[in-house]
Amino acid sequence: MSERRIGVWLIGAWGGVATTVVVGLLALKHKLTDTVGLVSALPQFSGLDLADWDELVLGGHEIRDTNYATEAAQLHNQSHVFAEAWLSKLGDELKAIDARVQPGTLHGVGAKIESLAGAAARKHLGESAGAAVERLAKDLELFRQQNALDQVIVVNVSSTEPPVNDSVRTQTWAAVEQQLKEGSPCELPASSLYAVAAFRHRFPYVNFTPSVGTNLPALEEYAQLQNVVHVGRDGKTGETLMKAVLAPMFANRNLRVMSWVGHNIFGNLDGKVLDDPENKANKVRSKDHLLTEILGYKPQTLVSIEYIESMGDWKTAWDHIHFQGFLGTPMVLQFIWQGCDSLLAAPLVIDLVRFAEREARRGGAGIMGHLASFFKSPMGCEEPAFALQFEQLLAWAKDISGK
Amino acid sequence: MSERRIGVWLIGAWGGVATTVVVGLLALKHKLTDTVGLVSALPQFSGLDLADWDELVLGGHEIRDTNYATEAAQLHNQSHVFAEAWLSKLGDELKAIDARVQPGTLHGVGAKIESLAGAAARKHLGESAGAAVERLAKDLELFRQQNALDQVIVVNVSSTEPPVNDSVRTQTWAAVEQQLKEGSPCELPASSLYAVAAFRHRFPYVNFTPSVGTNLPALEEYAQLQNVVHVGRDGKTGETLMKAVLAPMFANRNLRVMSWVGHNIFGNLDGKVLDDPENKANKVRSKDHLLTEILGYKPQTLVSIEYIESMGDWKTAWDHIHFQGFLGTPMVLQFIWQGCDSLLAAPLVIDLVRFAEREARRGGAGIMGHLASFFKSPMGCEEPAFALQFEQLLAWAKDISGK
Amino acid sequence: MSERRIGVWLIGAWGGVATTVVVGLLALKHKLTDTVGLVSALPQFSGLDLADWDELVLGGHEIRDTNYATEAAQLHNQSHVFAEAWLSKLGDELKAIDARVQPGTLHGVGAKIESLAGAAARKHLGESAGAAVERLAKDLELFRQQNALDQVIVVNVSSTEPPVNDSVRTQTWAAVEQQLKEGSPCELPASSLYAVAAFRHRFPYVNFTPSVGTNLPALEEYAQLQNVVHVGRDGKTGETLMKAVLAPMFANRNLRVMSWVGHNIFGNLDGKVLDDPENKANKVRSKDHLLTEILGYKPQTLVSIEYIESMGDWKTAWDHIHFQGFLGTPMVLQFIWQGCDSLLAAPLVIDLVRFAEREARRGGAGIMGHLASFFKSPMGCEEPAFALQFEQLLAWAKDISGK
Amino acid sequence: MSERRIGVWLIGAWGGVATTVVVGLLALKHKLTDTVGLVSALPQFSGLDLADWDELVLGGHEIRDTNYATEAAQLHNQSHVFAEAWLSKLGDELKAIDARVQPGTLHGVGAKIESLAGAAARKHLGESAGAAVERLAKDLELFRQQNALDQVIVVNVSSTEPPVNDSVRTQTWAAVEQQLKEGSPCELPASSLYAVAAFRHRFPYVNFTPSVGTNLPALEEYAQLQNVVHVGRDGKTGETLMKAVLAPMFANRNLRVMSWVGHNIFGNLDGKVLDDPENKANKVRSKDHLLTEILGYKPQTLVSIEYIESMGDWKTAWDHIHFQGFLGTPMVLQFIWQGCDSLLAAPLVIDLVRFAEREARRGGAGIMGHLASFFKSPMGCEEPAFALQFEQLLAWAKDISGK
Repeated sequence: MSERRIGVWLIGAWGGVATTVVVGLLALKHKLTDTVGLVSALPQFSGLDLADWDELVLGGHEIRDTNYATEAAQLHNQSHVFAEAWLSKLGDELKAIDARVQPGTLHGVGAKIESLAGAAARKHLGESAGAAVERLAKDLELFRQQNALDQVIVVNVSSTEPPVNDSVRTQTWAAVEQQLKEGSPCELPASSLYAVAAFRHRFPYVNFTPSVGTNLPALEEYAQLQNVVHVGRDGKTGETLMKAVLAPMFANRNLRVMSWVGHNIFGNLDGKVLDDPENKANKVRSKDHLLTEILGYKPQTLVSIEYIESMGDWKTAWDHIHFQGFLGTPMVLQFIWQGCDSLLAAPLVIDLVRFAEREARRGGAGIMGHLASFFKSPMGCEEPAFALQFEQLLAWAKDISGK
Repeated sequence: MSERRIGVWLIGAWGGVATTVVVGLLALKHKLTDTVGLVSALPQFSGLDLADWDELVLGGHEIRDTNYATEAAQLHNQSHVFAEAWLSKLGDELKAIDARVQPGTLHGVGAKIESLAGAAARKHLGESAGAAVERLAKDLELFRQQNALDQVIVVNVSSTEPPVNDSVRTQTWAAVEQQLKEGSPCELPASSLYAVAAFRHRFPYVNFTPSVGTNLPALEEYAQLQNVVHVGRDGKTGETLMKAVLAPMFANRNLRVMSWVGHNIFGNLDGKVLDDPENKANKVRSKDHLLTEILGYKPQTLVSIEYIESMGDWKTAWDHIHFQGFLGTPMVLQFIWQGCDSLLAAPLVIDLVRFAEREARRGGAGIMGHLASFFKSPMGCEEPAFALQFEQLLAWAKDISGK
Repeated sequence: MSERRIGVWLIGAWGGVATTVVVGLLALKHKLTDTVGLVSALPQFSGLDLADWDELVLGGHEIRDTNYATEAAQLHNQSHVFAEAWLSKLGDELKAIDARVQPGTLHGVGAKIESLAGAAARKHLGESAGAAVERLAKDLELFRQQNALDQVIVVNVSSTEPPVNDSVRTQTWAAVEQQLKEGSPCELPASSLYAVAAFRHRFPYVNFTPSVGTNLPALEEYAQLQNVVHVGRDGKTGETLMKAVLAPMFANRNLRVMSWVGHNIFGNLDGKVLDDPENKANKVRSKDHLLTEILGYKPQTLVSIEYIESMGDWKTAWDHIHFQGFLGTPMVLQFIWQGCDSLLAAPLVIDLVRFAEREARRGGAGIMGHLASFFKSPMGCEEPAFALQFEQLLAWAKDISGK
Repeated sequence: MSERRIGVWLIGAWGGVATTVVVGLLALKHKLTDTVGLVSALPQFSGLDLADWDELVLGGHEIRDTNYATEAAQLHNQSHVFAEAWLSKLGDELKAIDARVQPGTLHGVGAKIESLAGAAARKHLGESAGAAVERLAKDLELFRQQNALDQVIVVNVSSTEPPVNDSVRTQTWAAVEQQLKEGSPCELPASSLYAVAAFRHRFPYVNFTPSVGTNLPALEEYAQLQNVVHVGRDGKTGETLMKAVLAPMFANRNLRVMSWVGHNIFGNLDGKVLDDPENKANKVRSKDHLLTEILGYKPQTLVSIEYIESMGDWKTAWDHIHFQGFLGTPMVLQFIWQGCDSLLAAPLVIDLVRFAEREARRGGAGIMGHLASFFKSPMGCEEPAFALQFEQLLAWAKDISGK
């Protein structure tokens, strides 16, 4: 019998990643699966007293009209993941979580995402940023109360928004707060409004998407004021993980990368949204800066992300790395990554929930830079190499467990 | 005008790697090329006062009859490396180094390597281990004297020998010394005899091959007695470098590697020697143990190395990594590495010479475990992950430069 | 309502290919799937009045103890093929076919296959070739009678046997017949004994495996005597199909193939059997001769087939083709084939049944050379290029339909 | 001693393909190389009395200012092709051909190509189409006279122009002739004007580029009037050759191609020109129509061509073919093509010259549809499959040689 009750609030609650988080957590609770893929289940973290599967209560915001049974069945049929038998077994519990999904906000999400919205979310179309925050914060508080939760971790796993204007980067929290209070025009996109709502209740916020979220001076300021933890940006699941692992090898061996070409194809909803050049800009930027940071110079790079419907949730990346070795000799490394996107992302989301809850429990505040290994564009960390980022996570764990 | 004079003694002096070391060092001296590919040329090591190109004097042992002009021309024609113009420009200097190459020993090298031996080396066929050591040590001393050298670094870049019998692993140095003195039967293979000869003069020894070299209790004991540095085993240039870089990613992400298949094809002399199953055993063993060490369990593995003549010095590796993600989802990473073997190995040999000379200069003794990042089966280091091995090299550099 | 009743007798009836044939034919009958993957369903063959799905009655020989429900479930779980829902829906029909599976013979199958045999087949262990033929022929006749069949097509989809001795290639049918009649020692392996049993009843025989089957002078002679059609050898499903398609390109463009390396990994029962070097010999031979036939010279080739358990029925082939272009320029083509073996083979088996039945119906006799496009080592056809083999199939179709 | 004298007039005479044609023909003449890569050197064409290497005289039009020594050295240095020694050996002959290169026209080539033009070609900037034809035709005639040629084959190997307006497709030759005569505005691009100039002298014209060339009703009409042979469009050298070879396999096996993604990277001048979206349109269109023609339906396709400077003349294509097999099973074929673009194209140009000259010699006229196997968008041929296109070439050869 567990004593803690921890809420997990998923923004983009019926999307592929969130659906996999939900199905996965239920499967773990019912021991239908093992913990492969979960970083937080490694022996190195066993002494941290992380949240257990049956301590987690699920809910979330969403802008489409659908439900878990439908989304999970589609993932199974299109992408050949999960056992079909699980879905009927977990049916009632999925419905109970469906009932805790509330309409999200469309404020600043861009035309592409807006076009996906269902009736429930459309009802709030045109609401001011201030009104949106009020509504979202109320949803969070209700979730906490109705489920008698000790803590709520808010995680953004919704589709990628277009980039924000640079002007919003110079605003102070005071200025933003004023706009929200007065219901006056505000440039914060949805991903940031959810964070404001979370921070209002001192709930930790994790941004798993390339959207800006809390990666703004005003939001970082507000987090400090509220003494709340947060982290982001853009989960590092596939091709970019490979870059963060391979680029240090070239750097450490003094092999000069002349060009690094990466083509990504996949066919899930995320892919459809990224097919819009406005939304894609955020993603490509997030995938591309890494090489220069690691190598110390800028090779010619090319990153493409293309929506190929037949691929479903399977993301295939082909990377061609043209490098110069000793005496000017050109050589080539190519890799082909065939991973199931939601299945790669979902366990990391669960890890982040557990690590963020633990850090909040011990009284941490501000950006959790030690979680950099999970992100393409990590906040609070200058180290771009994956192996060294992971060492920071281990150091944090040692610090907590006192070993 | 340089004050230090440092000898570099290459065992396998006319082989592909040694030929590239020689051409490369001359090219660096004459500023025909830059330092790409040299780890020791990275800014992190700039404060160490490492040996300069024009301080190095080259010589070596070899069992074949050939010369640098021939070997370098073959590398150029078959594998499209170096500019053709360099070879005529460097012709006289190559001849001068040819003149410093002495016949190596065939003691314990196996039938395959013996079949490659030329007349000069065959003259000594059947010599006792003791006689071989005497002869090789005399060559080294003569090299030092005739070139007025302050130090000589002995590097083994010869073809892979068959594995040694286990019995030799239980011998003490005293027992071996006795055998050498008496000229009685001795199980040490050539790679170890060269080391004994080097240690006799307190010359550092680097084993870049999968042959056993100093990786025997008796030899480690002798190194301690003589207060000399040494390190090895098997340069980490291509596929295994990739394994040491990628496997930690799977481990850190708790992705379960179900199988890791690696096929290597190449067509140089090293490949021809490895085509003999006896010699190949040493190599495959060296390539395969790594995964279990990093992952903590043994996935199904397959490593093949095949001689494909048309490939010349270009080694192509295809690796297929079948791993299980969250909820039992099977995924695949494949990579294709197309590297020129001698051109990958040669700069590392130069690095090891510079790092070993530096460590000897500051009075180090015993195994240089901080050089583990250079080896497939590193002596003196328990850490199998490349990134963390490299951190040890950086720590050593900081220790020396006092920063 | 169909008037024809055509038996399909599968040797290796509970193997992966046969199980997929059975599930596939039931799925087609119940319109659970479309005809993708079936050559015989192409519009070019629509005028031939080929057998319809509901005209086919299934049965077979098998040496293991298992059943369709078990085998199909394993295929689904391990290799993610079929919808799970099909298996319960088709359960009763699968059981009915289970009841028509009879114990096969172990005569000449080699130690590896013998080790897989269940109790039912073991009962006949040591039976003479003559006794085996009697028994197998009786099974076929009973199948025909009990199901009121007009025709029975016998198809070998069992595991690969070791190669036969050359001596059997010089025997006449009269000599073999004598051995069978007298129950005296006979070198025919199981694959050929099944054919003798089939020919006795003038049932067509299709050999989808690398085993020798009817590819012996004595058997070809017997087929002529009995006026029955037959064909084989070794279904062309993946890597070798690619070779038969790509090698003509190199030949027609006068690009000189220097080396062609092909590595195959997979994890099904077929793979386990081929892990035995004796059985593998037959397979590798069948995959390798093609290139020389197409190119007109022998490049260096390497074909490996390795059992990697985690792959299940998914066969992955990596082929590296090193070729020389104009002015001696070396270039490379690589391909990676990721196909599900049983799912590639099964539709071809169905095609061959339909085409063989059609040819028998119009009174054909002897080897069906026009089916060469289906086989790695086609009998009765000198043309090795896939595209031109397919033209022969089209010509046959035109000949029948009179267009 | 040869009796025939045949001119080869290269449009884009100093480009990578033309330079390789020139170096290659000289190398063949001097027996520095063999005939690998030349289709016309296959034994199937040995009885045709095709033009010999020393019967060919070279010249051409070009818009840049450079020369063969410079261009060939760059190819060697950047892309590691040819032996360095050849270039000095052939120096004088290359200079003699340089002297026969005349300034081409910039009429309708688009801004990108115009930006590459040198002083000599710029002198004619703004000339009317009629004036251009007069000038170009005069150059051709002078070439014929000064070299006492029996025939001149004009081959377009210049950079890709932007697509033409549809209106030009409805013009008759009479209308175009009128425009040329009057010097009035004319929509024919350079590639067509060269053809007009060639046809005026009844010189055969081969269009190896994606530019429109003679692929216009007016031009086809003029060719008929002049009784001259011509053919085109867009040499089939790499990725599209693979498509024309592989797509029929999927069609013949009834495997449903769901998506076919092809990414091409390379770094030569052609790549730079194609980096302009206007010019790229012509190329991508030419690469993409093929699949629908072969498969009979349109899968989702993606073709990208990207300029990556470090690649030089080496074009690498990664193709990912996602196809559905039996029972809806998704499978994948991927290929990676690493070919040197100019070295693949040049021998085909030489083949086309020889085949066109032969057809003209026997009195042929109009489109040479039997040369379809050489082109991505072949004129005069409905058959898209490479293997069957090649059969047409063989049939033509048999027809000529009377076998």
